[in-house]
Amino acid sequence: MASQSKLEPLIGGDVSDLRRHFQEIFRAVQANYCAALEQLEPEATFKSDEWTRSEEKVIKKGFGLTRVLRDGAVFEQAVVALSSVSGILPTALSEKLIGASEPAPFCADGVSLIVHPRSPMAPTTHANVRLLTVGDKTWFGGGADLTPYYLFEEDATAFHRRLFQLCEETRPGWYQTFKEWCDSYFYLPHRGEARGIGGIFYDYLGRDSLEDLRDGAALTERLGFGLASCYIPIVEKRKDMPWGDTHRTFQEIRRGRYVEFNLMYDRGTQFGLQSGGRVESILASLPPRVQWSYGFVPEPGSEEEKLIETVRNSRNWLAEKGE
Amino acid sequence: MASQSKLEPLIGGDVSDLRRHFQEIFRAVQANYCAALEQLEPEATFKSDEWTRSEEKVIKKGFGLTRVLRDGAVFEQAVVALSSVSGILPTALSEKLIGASEPAPFCADGVSLIVHPRSPMAPTTHANVRLLTVGDKTWFGGGADLTPYYLFEEDATAFHRRLFQLCEETRPGWYQTFKEWCDSYFYLPHRGEARGIGGIFYDYLGRDSLEDLRDGAALTERLGFGLASCYIPIVEKRKDMPWGDTHRTFQEIRRGRYVEFNLMYDRGTQFGLQSGGRVESILASLPPRVQWSYGFVPEPGSEEEKLIETVRNSRNWLAEKGE
Repeated sequence: MASQSKLEPLIGGDVSDLRRHFQEIFRAVQANYCAALEQLEPEATFKSDEWTRSEEKVIKKGFGLTRVLRDGAVFEQAVVALSSVSGILPTALSEKLIGASEPAPFCADGVSLIVHPRSPMAPTTHANVRLLTVGDKTWFGGGADLTPYYLFEEDATAFHRRLFQLCEETRPGWYQTFKEWCDSYFYLPHRGEARGIGGIFYDYLGRDSLEDLRDGAALTERLGFGLASCYIPIVEKRKDMPWGDTHRTFQEIRRGRYVEFNLMYDRGTQFGLQSGGRVESILASLPPRVQWSYGFVPEPGSEEEKLIETVRNSRNWLAEKGE
Repeated sequence: MASQSKLEPLIGGDVSDLRRHFQEIFRAVQANYCAALEQLEPEATFKSDEWTRSEEKVIKKGFGLTRVLRDGAVFEQAVVALSSVSGILPTALSEKLIGASEPAPFCADGVSLIVHPRSPMAPTTHANVRLLTVGDKTWFGGGADLTPYYLFEEDATAFHRRLFQLCEETRPGWYQTFKEWCDSYFYLPHRGEARGIGGIFYDYLGRDSLEDLRDGAALTERLGFGLASCYIPIVEKRKDMPWGDTHRTFQEIRRGRYVEFNLMYDRGTQFGLQSGGRVESILASLPPRVQWSYGFVPEPGSEEEKLIETVRNSRNWLAEKGE
């Protein structure tokens, strides 16, 4: 990576230098991803919403730039949100994260994105890259995952292969570890289903070793700038496929499961809302139009049934044939 | 009440007799309420879904009759669900409910209803009446509340006045206590909003005194059979009022708040899902079609703004003029 030489002196140095460096990276990741999405839209563009916060429950200072594209031809809603917040964590959370016995200062920088295409043939994607400091510990977290409504196995394989590359360039073995972490994180126990076909999820990289901090920084930068290459080719392939009301209804019902996960299980959502974060930004991940349908059961042998079978059983997508 | 003489010998007697008595009442409440809703529908009727459960996590035995009306002319979705379950509660819950230091046997009977009208001019209603036994303690719980999308103050007042009557016939003072409990229960802290304009909510009636058990039984029966009289007159008044796309969009956005409450804060939902209850029945409260809209703000001075102002400030609806 171009910035490898810039990064090296920051590892193990002053955290605020590392933070400034990644704030710039995250801002560039946001700009880069928004531009990639806009290239697929004939007219719709991102609107920007800048905000600052002060003296909330946990967050004492914060700013953010939330960029939202709504009602596009290709994307029904895309949110790419940059934020930097700092404050004091309650004891329980400080203990859980760094074993501290009293409230610890924290700061968090990152970018999150959630893209809900209009076509049920194109999958939803979610990704996040972040840098967290709590007390004297600093670490990277992040991930990317895919939620299709209709399953194209070659898309799932391509998505995972690209993530495999990004991980393995950084440290061999990380893909498998973070793939499994993703499968267990994005899981709805009450449905017995994963949210989608997974991806990668990682956290705490660097909290306990400088080597992890170095490689975590590298992965986070790679993943941030690689996100568009994971997702955009899939949308390009699927966006003009024909679909009808049945597909749309199924998409909206599956989006209901997405809402269930985000409101009931997502740690980020819970942490955000409990810490007095900005509600609109935190809940910007929720899909624009959603349905719940009592007792919905797909036709035996249908594409809808195939999707549901898929999210009920974790798979090794790298082993699939792909394109 | 007609059954007062039947009820009296059951108070303080064998719990299984009380349980059988109320299972009959709850079945009648379900039939009565479904019939009242069907009278407003030109064609749509309730479909029945009978189920039994055995050997789930917490629930060891259960049966239910879920009645669902979908895509009616007046009601987009109405669910009236009867259930009777029994099993063993985990220690934490046994301790919380009856101060027991080990897992306690429990049984729960009740009926829940959630009605989502098609027209944004007609409010959603939710109600529940139930009888619970945990270890050697038995109590009644229940309540009814209203969630309008457009505020007609006379409807809110009529709804609360009817609940006032039902409570005060049973025990003077209960309306105010249970009205306040409802306001604090159906509250979304992250939005700073109540779910709707409230109603009543009660629990633990009889756990600690036979007098409460007697009056709790009376209130539960009165409320069960009185639910239709609280709600039906409001729907009759509103169902044929004109409305357009703007109203519909606002209704669907507000329904999103309903989903947020039910998935994030409702104890019944959480208990049901954690105890291995029947997912379809538990989540049948979720509205059929829902929207989330990033940064939605109503026009100043609009009816939409008036509704939001209303759910942000608890009111004494009995003091309003009404019709």
